[in-house]
Amino acid sequence: MKLLRVGPQGHEKPAALDANGTLRDLSAHVADIGGAALTPASLDALRAVDLTTLPELAADSRIGACVGAVGKIICVGLNYSDHAIESGMAIPNEPVLFLKPTSALCGPYDDVEIPRGAEKTDWEVELGIVIGKTAKYVSEADALDHVAGYCVVNDVSERAFQLERGGQWDKGKAHDTFAPLGPWLVTADEVADPQDLSLWLEVDGHRYQDGSTRTMIFGVAHLVSYISQFMSLHPGDVISTGTPPGVGFGQRPQVYLRAGQVMTLGISGLGEQRQRTVAA
Amino acid sequence: MKLLRVGPQGHEKPAALDANGTLRDLSAHVADIGGAALTPASLDALRAVDLTTLPELAADSRIGACVGAVGKIICVGLNYSDHAIESGMAIPNEPVLFLKPTSALCGPYDDVEIPRGAEKTDWEVELGIVIGKTAKYVSEADALDHVAGYCVVNDVSERAFQLERGGQWDKGKAHDTFAPLGPWLVTADEVADPQDLSLWLEVDGHRYQDGSTRTMIFGVAHLVSYISQFMSLHPGDVISTGTPPGVGFGQRPQVYLRAGQVMTLGISGLGEQRQRTVAA
Repeated sequence: MKLLRVGPQGHEKPAALDANGTLRDLSAHVADIGGAALTPASLDALRAVDLTTLPELAADSRIGACVGAVGKIICVGLNYSDHAIESGMAIPNEPVLFLKPTSALCGPYDDVEIPRGAEKTDWEVELGIVIGKTAKYVSEADALDHVAGYCVVNDVSERAFQLERGGQWDKGKAHDTFAPLGPWLVTADEVADPQDLSLWLEVDGHRYQDGSTRTMIFGVAHLVSYISQFMSLHPGDVISTGTPPGVGFGQRPQVYLRAGQVMTLGISGLGEQRQRTVAA
Repeated sequence: MKLLRVGPQGHEKPAALDANGTLRDLSAHVADIGGAALTPASLDALRAVDLTTLPELAADSRIGACVGAVGKIICVGLNYSDHAIESGMAIPNEPVLFLKPTSALCGPYDDVEIPRGAEKTDWEVELGIVIGKTAKYVSEADALDHVAGYCVVNDVSERAFQLERGGQWDKGKAHDTFAPLGPWLVTADEVADPQDLSLWLEVDGHRYQDGSTRTMIFGVAHLVSYISQFMSLHPGDVISTGTPPGVGFGQRPQVYLRAGQVMTLGISGLGEQRQRTVAA
């Protein structure tokens, strides 16, 4: 299934794409795409619904972040060795984790803000993992049982805030609209191999990132297991698994976003995003 | 007002302490202590309620985290110069920020888990700021208008996970139960000067921390304004403002928590917490 959230910011309805690509309203079956709606039992129940019997939603409706009431967004840093090298940082021995506040979430086609005083706003296409079952101290062998599905994330980053303003990366990862999520959550049963997905990103039509999840240092199962050693993962939590090479910070000379540009990005089978940049 | 949340984990009711210290059920007036219930208009409406007319809650009820549906927890690192020195770290030129996941929240008297594989689990008594009005690019002069109130936070930290396991501090700040919050939120009108509060912490009756918010490097108004330059703050968000000297990491030799100990901590006018440590 492709599950999404449709409607004005803060008032999105749960929806699904049917086999013809028509948006169908899931409100009669779940309150939101998030939390309890993502458990294995709930997803099984949704799979049994004949989508063609549900109300259509207008094709031009706004699409919100594909998960609602997200508990936390855990990001993995430097998880593609080529990206660590382009960033001038060591290839990590174990996953580098940081957090992104849920106030940064937005829809896949919403405008992305360039913060006031920003100098180095950058893009990062990433594979997002959406948790469907609470995970605490889970083994790598069991980890994928805790995954509801996958989605596209743009881990927008302000490098000066991240690296030059004191201490921890979170400061440069937190701005409102720095976490476009979606367009949809593709349930795990429809993703044959999360370690064999192409991912790409363009700015104003120039392709900067063109990678594959094959070259992740730490794969999806390892990450879910690893993170669960440090904190419980709950249904609706999102893990953003790191970006392949080609960020602006890695260009020579470096290239950063300015207001009025357009980012387009996607992952094979998971859909595409498109954001215009605007001044905050 | 002293606002709190009473009942089993995940099923807490909103409550207030009346003038006699009796717990009163606020369910007829607000759904939870959090989000929209913390706006200036909502707090004004609650102030007009005659608490003695409300149902009593049993004095021995469990007390939960004093804010529900917390959007994010922003923590300030090294915000007392003596603590920076005891940690062997530079006194920061601007606030060091990191995030703690809301899955770490627990009640002020709940057990605190020592994570599996932990070697260096440590305590940090901190003044918590609870946001009551959305703040984005607010000035320091206007910052306190965005504060609903204050509470005690124990920013429990695993120093090995934080400092020795790759990159960012969040990994050592995130474990379940690492954010006891409360016992109550004291509304800002009842805190004469947030920069003149005593704060202290004991482990098994030995006093390790004994400080004052007078010696913060960056005060409450500066922090709210500063953080709002990097991300929007929303009602129900919590800022934990850093810890004074006396953490276990700063002892010579270092001292860390083990299962079976008791932490007690408090801030003048904001109440006390007490947690037993247990193996995860």
